[in-house]
Amino acid sequence: MLQELMDREEISFLLHEYCRTLDAMELDTLAAIFTEDCVVEYGPEDRLQSHGRAAIRQGLERLWRWRRTSHHLSNVQIRFPRAGEANALSYIIAWHERPDGSTATIWGQYHDKFVRTPAGWRLKRRRQTMNGNDAGFTVNVFPSERRQPPAGWIAPVIDQPVTARQGGGRT
Amino acid sequence: MLQELMDREEISFLLHEYCRTLDAMELDTLAAIFTEDCVVEYGPEDRLQSHGRAAIRQGLERLWRWRRTSHHLSNVQIRFPRAGEANALSYIIAWHERPDGSTATIWGQYHDKFVRTPAGWRLKRRRQTMNGNDAGFTVNVFPSERRQPPAGWIAPVIDQPVTARQGGGRT
Amino acid sequence: MLQELMDREEISFLLHEYCRTLDAMELDTLAAIFTEDCVVEYGPEDRLQSHGRAAIRQGLERLWRWRRTSHHLSNVQIRFPRAGEANALSYIIAWHERPDGSTATIWGQYHDKFVRTPAGWRLKRRRQTMNGNDAGFTVNVFPSERRQPPAGWIAPVIDQPVTARQGGGRT
Repeated sequence: MLQELMDREEISFLLHEYCRTLDAMELDTLAAIFTEDCVVEYGPEDRLQSHGRAAIRQGLERLWRWRRTSHHLSNVQIRFPRAGEANALSYIIAWHERPDGSTATIWGQYHDKFVRTPAGWRLKRRRQTMNGNDAGFTVNVFPSERRQPPAGWIAPVIDQPVTARQGGGRT
Repeated sequence: MLQELMDREEISFLLHEYCRTLDAMELDTLAAIFTEDCVVEYGPEDRLQSHGRAAIRQGLERLWRWRRTSHHLSNVQIRFPRAGEANALSYIIAWHERPDGSTATIWGQYHDKFVRTPAGWRLKRRRQTMNGNDAGFTVNVFPSERRQPPAGWIAPVIDQPVTARQGGGRT
Repeated sequence: MLQELMDREEISFLLHEYCRTLDAMELDTLAAIFTEDCVVEYGPEDRLQSHGRAAIRQGLERLWRWRRTSHHLSNVQIRFPRAGEANALSYIIAWHERPDGSTATIWGQYHDKFVRTPAGWRLKRRRQTMNGNDAGFTVNVFPSERRQPPAGWIAPVIDQPVTARQGGGRT
């Protein structure tokens, strides 16, 4: 069990290292997180999919079209389906700012498969999905799965008109 | 100590599983995170409080009034006051989008009590508080506690006029 | 290795305790996270730098100029360069609200050095950098480092006009 805790620690480190190196545009260090034969799908279009470490590195140069970015990762859930393999789900808030000062934010998920290699754990497959986005974010990303309400479901009244609010922090 | 690290890992997993299943509206899986006799308070009003697993499951159907949601959990702090019990504090950014495209965001905290059961750790009590909210979020939630300044405290001038900014990333 | 996992747990706890006590303005508890001789740089100006625990406590009283705050920490990466020392990088989303209801948000990083003391791990040095900020945030903070594109790099067309979007969550 100690080994499993250490594996979780190492995989979490790589998830965060991806964010750090992407925001710093240290693309060589970023590419080393992946296996040589990795497959990454940021969206359903060809230009958002990369096969192989070199292609991922080159593809992510597109992040330079933003002036600044910030990738905040959380909700890490790691499972080990078999020895030497790990499935990781994580949540990402990705904030991007264009040279003109306008911004784009995605509320997303990374669905990842890691494998253990002689050099340590490496990311073999990543699929990005999107829980939500603001109006400024217009890249075509897979929607996260969400179940629909049963037929005939009626929304209750929960939200209060602003004037009737009480007890909250803005009274 | 190894057991305690594993307990922390299991409780953290459940905190994240709550977010995942809520955003996916997998309410049966979500309900299984709680004890049968759990008490959940999302706010001070009756309609925001649930007693028992079945009531929580039914109450959370109200999330279908949003078109999309994304719950980003962080700042997990777990303490074990006695064997088989854990107090967990975590921070949550909950983003919600209505069918009309308008959004509501809460900057909140979950104050939780977990208990160890034969089936594993389960959530027995949750109280949500709110550090902040945007104008779109109008649900009545308990404010997080915050101490007030001493009498006579005067705010210093820290924030700069935009024109005088230098050294930051937007120069 | 078990000791290292426990050290990571303790340091992570302190990173979160900083956020919790800052949002609650429990400044005495916050100050105890630091060493007596700590140095904190929130930005390049003198008024944003503090030397010593007492000065940090007093300096952070400036947070009372906000009505509410919420500090969401993630992406924790801890390394142990030598026994009794730890370097920690973490990401922070810091949301602030003024008494007039206007807000300021920073997307930042904490670059920290922790040391082991007889009383446990303590924060000896913190430098805050900024990946990004919204228009409401006007404090002068160090920019996070980001590599520039090679000379002659041309931005690809990735973002779609809103009318052409498909496959995303907002169709």
